Amino acid sequence: MENTVEQQNSTAQVITPSQLLEHWQGHRRVTRRVIEAFPEKEFFTHSIGGMRPFADMVMELLGIAVPGLKEVVTGETTELQEHFDHGNSKAKLLQWWDEASEEINVLWAKIPAEKFQEVLKLFGQYEGTLHSQVFYFIDNEIHHRAQGYVYLRSLSIEPPFFYDRS
Amino acid sequence: MENTVEQQNSTAQVITPSQLLEHWQGHRRVTRRVIEAFPEKEFFTHSIGGMRPFADMVMELLGIAVPGLKEVVTGETTELQEHFDHGNSKAKLLQWWDEASEEINVLWAKIPAEKFQEVLKLFGQYEGTLHSQVFYFIDNEIHHRAQGYVYLRSLSIEPPFFYDRS
Repeated sequence: MENTVEQQNSTAQVITPSQLLEHWQGHRRVTRRVIEAFPEKEFFTHSIGGMRPFADMVMELLGIAVPGLKEVVTGETTELQEHFDHGNSKAKLLQWWDEASEEINVLWAKIPAEKFQEVLKLFGQYEGTLHSQVFYFIDNEIHHRAQGYVYLRSLSIEPPFFYDRS
Repeated sequence: MENTVEQQNSTAQVITPSQLLEHWQGHRRVTRRVIEAFPEKEFFTHSIGGMRPFADMVMELLGIAVPGLKEVVTGETTELQEHFDHGNSKAKLLQWWDEASEEINVLWAKIPAEKFQEVLKLFGQYEGTLHSQVFYFIDNEIHHRAQGYVYLRSLSIEPPFFYDRS
């Protein structure tokens, strides 16, 4: 990629921290609608090809986003935790989702822009620049949510629009 | 998001243009491996819940990436084109994929860093900042590729690792 380096301008932002936050929150709004679209039972049980039910994927996303950002802000390592006692209640997971979205805003405000180029290790094992970590959080959410789209289609349910981030 | 604005530093890059290119190319390498993982026949025919075969999704991705970047570089509007005469050959689509990956590098080098904050309309209809357009390209690829993961799982085929971008 040496041919692009000369064109980089250190004063021009490709994407600012607040734009990246809004990008992520837009995706979180879509994911919330995908959770809502699932019938209660199938949210916790429906599977294709031996894959996890969508509720389990959502728990993974909940286990990464806020705990990951907390590590970024506090510098304290925690263990990745992907199982929470939801009592098979979709409402409970939606509540956690909303609380996490709020907490992401609060934590994000504590991250200085310079930090996005810093290399850090999260959950004691994943090493990379902060921007690569955040993009992993977002991309992993898109990835699993898209699997939820297929689950919904296989249940004859129309998923929310991918491009509507409102 | 007013609480984050004060922390923005115009000289710190969240992600540089060349890092974003590498991020995208890493995803393209994963998508290539997903294409490769499909049996020839199922690549063009397998479907769940009335969704398109994975080959059709790949054609959509091919119709967006290079044509979209060409518009960015030349300023000339083209119509979105998502169907190409592949003659049911996976090798042909893989060849187009590789050619597109090369062409993305060439086009990317012609985009000045300042342009990522510019608002532009692509394919005569999609309006937004250049960074939002590029993230749409990448996110849409992650989205459809993840649907390919479910197709593979439903065919009892182990998909490539999501996290391996090498």
